[in-house]
Amino acid sequence: MPHSLRLPDLAAIRAAQARIAPHVHRTPVLTSSSIDGEVGARLYFKCENLQKVGAFKARGAVNAVFSLPADVAGRGVVTHSSGNHGAALAYAARRRGIPAWVVMPENAPKVKIANVAREGATIRFCVATVAAREAACAEVQGESGATLIHPFDNAEVIAGQGTAALELLADVPDLDAVIAPCGGGGLLAGTAIAAHGLSARLRVLGAEPAQADDAARSLASGRVEPLPTTTTIADGLRTTLSPRTLAALRAHVEAIGTCSEDAIVRAMRLIFERMKLVVEPSSAVPLACLLEGTLPLRGARVGVLLSGGNVDLDRLPWQT
Amino acid sequence: MPHSLRLPDLAAIRAAQARIAPHVHRTPVLTSSSIDGEVGARLYFKCENLQKVGAFKARGAVNAVFSLPADVAGRGVVTHSSGNHGAALAYAARRRGIPAWVVMPENAPKVKIANVAREGATIRFCVATVAAREAACAEVQGESGATLIHPFDNAEVIAGQGTAALELLADVPDLDAVIAPCGGGGLLAGTAIAAHGLSARLRVLGAEPAQADDAARSLASGRVEPLPTTTTIADGLRTTLSPRTLAALRAHVEAIGTCSEDAIVRAMRLIFERMKLVVEPSSAVPLACLLEGTLPLRGARVGVLLSGGNVDLDRLPWQT
Repeated sequence: MPHSLRLPDLAAIRAAQARIAPHVHRTPVLTSSSIDGEVGARLYFKCENLQKVGAFKARGAVNAVFSLPADVAGRGVVTHSSGNHGAALAYAARRRGIPAWVVMPENAPKVKIANVAREGATIRFCVATVAAREAACAEVQGESGATLIHPFDNAEVIAGQGTAALELLADVPDLDAVIAPCGGGGLLAGTAIAAHGLSARLRVLGAEPAQADDAARSLASGRVEPLPTTTTIADGLRTTLSPRTLAALRAHVEAIGTCSEDAIVRAMRLIFERMKLVVEPSSAVPLACLLEGTLPLRGARVGVLLSGGNVDLDRLPWQT
Repeated sequence: MPHSLRLPDLAAIRAAQARIAPHVHRTPVLTSSSIDGEVGARLYFKCENLQKVGAFKARGAVNAVFSLPADVAGRGVVTHSSGNHGAALAYAARRRGIPAWVVMPENAPKVKIANVAREGATIRFCVATVAAREAACAEVQGESGATLIHPFDNAEVIAGQGTAALELLADVPDLDAVIAPCGGGGLLAGTAIAAHGLSARLRVLGAEPAQADDAARSLASGRVEPLPTTTTIADGLRTTLSPRTLAALRAHVEAIGTCSEDAIVRAMRLIFERMKLVVEPSSAVPLACLLEGTLPLRGARVGVLLSGGNVDLDRLPWQT
């Protein structure tokens, strides 16, 4: 297998779990009988919005940073990220005592910029194009020798993300299915590998906005499909897969549901109101698919990954 | 001891814990290193905002309802409440399969009215005076034979509220202190009895808005001090103590901190932003006191009761 398609196995996810344990929260699994009533299934929410830096991304970043040999780590790490992975990498670098650079688009949400800054990373702003962010990353690497830690196209990152499902399935062993939101596919790939490593009969599903349905199309065509510019409110999911994450999804994922923007806002508000949890729009996408019936899970016991909680509290999307 | 001063002991709180366990969540204890940094203490938040009906009130109401003999319970229960206890009593009655009536002031927050309605209780609106609500309760009792379950002046309710501290101290046994917000004093009384039942050296503190500082004044004078009409944003704390709850506080509570309205909003926003938890203003009052330095807990390991999460999400208090 070429290096660019390397994926972790269950053993690698278990090793990641031990490696990251001192640095991340073991997040709770919460339930809501009133939301169960609305969707006709029994849902177990793994609350990664309560994770360090407010997102599951802490898991992958910590695993990647703590997997580096000491001499390599000492030169620092760099990434481009619309936010949560950037903050997570900054956090991981701070815990290891190494420098971090984060390349961010100038139009990134304020709350996500603040999260990166609070963790003490050096931020480099660039215009919001792939070419500009890659150039900025290359520049940092050239100056410092820092290692690029990609937000999802990285086996150690995927292994770290898979640890959330490992914990969820330890807490609730008799699930029928798990759903993760899908942007670049790192969380869904890690979840799928962990879930099928533990039980081949577990159903693994993804969820994405209809306005960013590249993963569903990629799963159908068998190749990484492009994503036209999208303004979906689920800003964490405005990303295409990589060949690596697509390979994991093709091996493990039964289906990817899609949902409307309205359903995302409705699901997000339900989670605030009934579960008393602050979640960002991306977190609400699996529930939005369940509300719109695009994932065939009626009557099932379903684990749902709530991916993060970094949202601008000055204006929530249902407020006019 | 007169019946009107009867209080539960640790054994009663343990019995309550067993009685209510099938009907309430065991809520998680969460921490935030960034909030710890802001207050200079190590805080362990007991998340009763994640409790059934969104507030610790579910504990006391379930304990009271399930403590009633079958023939008495069959005639139903009634209470007056600005909201959380009303919803909690409705929930408890539904779980036991008995009728519930909730008397509410016409100006109660929308979200709290909706919570009571969702649990299936019969709501009777009255004008917002003590006389009107007592008359409405008496009317229901006369018609139905329902038992009045007071929001806090009730030994079984206090025992139920104390179970949150029992769980907190089981999860984090080596705390130096616990803080609960104080309205009528049911939560603080139950917390204090549970805490001192487990360890005499545990420090127990209360917190209330400076605009509703009747508990601090009552502790100083030794009698239940009145509370002039207040518009504190912490609507759950606009209540005086009863002789019963005051007796518990005098026996156990070291101090009651007070805080400004601004600090309540700031603390509430911090909990949303850093902990990703939806809390109502009353929940934020202990942290507000810590931010303003009115509770002497620097460097301590402190359990903080987050009392509830029922807040109007259409407009949060920091939004203009």
